[in-house]
Amino acid sequence: MKIQGVPHRSIESLAEGRTVRILDQTLLPHHIEWKTLSTMQEAADAIKVMRVRGAPLIGATAAYGYFFALRDDPSDDTVQVAYDVLHATRPTAVNLRWALDRMRRVVTPLPPAERADAAWQEAGAICEDDVRINHAIGEHALSLIRTAAEKKPDAPVNIMTHCNAGALGCVDWGTAISPIYQAHDAGVKVHVWVSETRPRGQGAALTCWELRQHGIPHTLVVDNEAGHLLQRGLVDLCVVGADRVTARGDVANKIGTYLKALATRAHGVPFYVTLPVSTIDWTIEDGVRDIPIEQRAAREVTHVPGVSGDGSRQEVLITPDGTAARNDAFDVTPAELVTAIITEHGIFQATAGDLQRLASMAK
Amino acid sequence: MKIQGVPHRSIESLAEGRTVRILDQTLLPHHIEWKTLSTMQEAADAIKVMRVRGAPLIGATAAYGYFFALRDDPSDDTVQVAYDVLHATRPTAVNLRWALDRMRRVVTPLPPAERADAAWQEAGAICEDDVRINHAIGEHALSLIRTAAEKKPDAPVNIMTHCNAGALGCVDWGTAISPIYQAHDAGVKVHVWVSETRPRGQGAALTCWELRQHGIPHTLVVDNEAGHLLQRGLVDLCVVGADRVTARGDVANKIGTYLKALATRAHGVPFYVTLPVSTIDWTIEDGVRDIPIEQRAAREVTHVPGVSGDGSRQEVLITPDGTAARNDAFDVTPAELVTAIITEHGIFQATAGDLQRLASMAK
Repeated sequence: MKIQGVPHRSIESLAEGRTVRILDQTLLPHHIEWKTLSTMQEAADAIKVMRVRGAPLIGATAAYGYFFALRDDPSDDTVQVAYDVLHATRPTAVNLRWALDRMRRVVTPLPPAERADAAWQEAGAICEDDVRINHAIGEHALSLIRTAAEKKPDAPVNIMTHCNAGALGCVDWGTAISPIYQAHDAGVKVHVWVSETRPRGQGAALTCWELRQHGIPHTLVVDNEAGHLLQRGLVDLCVVGADRVTARGDVANKIGTYLKALATRAHGVPFYVTLPVSTIDWTIEDGVRDIPIEQRAAREVTHVPGVSGDGSRQEVLITPDGTAARNDAFDVTPAELVTAIITEHGIFQATAGDLQRLASMAK
Repeated sequence: MKIQGVPHRSIESLAEGRTVRILDQTLLPHHIEWKTLSTMQEAADAIKVMRVRGAPLIGATAAYGYFFALRDDPSDDTVQVAYDVLHATRPTAVNLRWALDRMRRVVTPLPPAERADAAWQEAGAICEDDVRINHAIGEHALSLIRTAAEKKPDAPVNIMTHCNAGALGCVDWGTAISPIYQAHDAGVKVHVWVSETRPRGQGAALTCWELRQHGIPHTLVVDNEAGHLLQRGLVDLCVVGADRVTARGDVANKIGTYLKALATRAHGVPFYVTLPVSTIDWTIEDGVRDIPIEQRAAREVTHVPGVSGDGSRQEVLITPDGTAARNDAFDVTPAELVTAIITEHGIFQATAGDLQRLASMAK
């Protein structure tokens, strides 16, 4: 990801002192500010208040949080307690559990004195893998954008996305945005419809910001626009990320994804979901029944943060004072609405059978 | 409509001096402020900047604007020029044209000296008719809420709505909210899911405000929640207003309505559209092709108004500075997604045939 023209990652390890720094995403797009993490609690808080967000980046941050805990106390007790504390930060994204499982598997058999070093190495490896995997996801999905481009050689491919499944949601590249970067860099004309993504506005704040940093044409719309744009033939394909996918292909992703899936289906437009295999929860089938949906604070709905005319950060109340609000962070799109699931191993159908094929490739 | 316990209308005529006052809806829910209108330009501006909004209220306000013009100059020229100026304020709501046609029909045959008096009377009659009509719409739609209530005697009927089709969108009662007021007053337990309605937040700001003034239980959700709530069985029926309905039942309404219609259909939940017959444009059939969709300023998408912690009005930027945005004010829901169209004459199917029956009743 470029930030003011310079390549960066969303989380960067600082070998000296073994700390990491993260781009504080609660301050974007108005302020670019790096924040150093050097304790487990700082990592857990960064996940909880969403200084970092996006399933893959949550996993990477938790991995470093696990290292911090073991650096301070490499006991068997910490191996378990740190797992539990970090795992409790957010309930829906399964990559969090996946990353912690991977960390725990590495350190558990080791003598305590060796655990911190191994954890630091493994957290770094999780990050390197994430970058490589997301690039591979983008390569596979790029073929679908190319196919769409061949049908309209003189006009850009109009791609709708939701939330931020970009470099900012991962260590780098992103999942849904990865093929868009690669298409743009390869000279394939693209234009992105960025959905605001209320309540937290990750589309408006983050996706617009990173596309702008990279010079990719895009237009912001409110979430309500999706049906209208599709009905008017202004969308060639829709591509989103995922926070958890079940073994049969049900997709939990940012609230509002399901409405986009319904609307793409109504207009015969492909609906692609991009994810690393680590986002698949092989233990469940029925996403509506079995994926826990995080409920967040009403304040995220009743108040909107931004900057006012004088450049100061403000949070404004948009409702009568005291209005009750419900705030589900995610929804579940049933597999039958998903045109394809795109992973680092290629393009798959959202069916139990084809995902089983993926499972054997991923072993 | 009650405001701090006192009955009011959204537009109130002041016989002395022949002016009107409107509740300035750009200041709600944070400030209750009445604004006097006494010239055509003030009326036109109030419509354009949305101090008044909602198809029926736009019509009523335009009628008074027409009176102001004729009071100042009752010439044949003004009969036409005032029509054009007021008609140009907003393109989608057909009640605007309907109200102006009704006014022009009354004044055109009269000698100029009699035109102002007749226009004042007719504008008043339009308002009285609106109140009566909206109450009748509510009575008809109430039967559908009662039916839903019979199926769940111990729990409230969960009603989803969009935007503000309440008293604030009309002279009084509202269209979609009229049956909700009447159900609540009759002791039928209801609970309303209020959709924020980005970009202008009429749900968050106006519907929450008027339901609260009346003591009706409600919960605010972001527009993205509609699919999730329906999927979880938390919605018994959806009811919205309309800005223009075609002769076959296609419905133009606030952007985002179409997504709700698609989601209700996916879950077998009724999708009702409430409107006075004056909202039907009998001259067109195909709403997607023939209803003009107003495009509004990008700033409504990139900036959000509200009040900050110190109670001051602020508008905050939520995107990178200079982000491009598209802002369609309305979308079109095809008739086949509409369970029923509810007017002052009763409940109709969204088909050319049944609406023809309505047309003959409405003559």
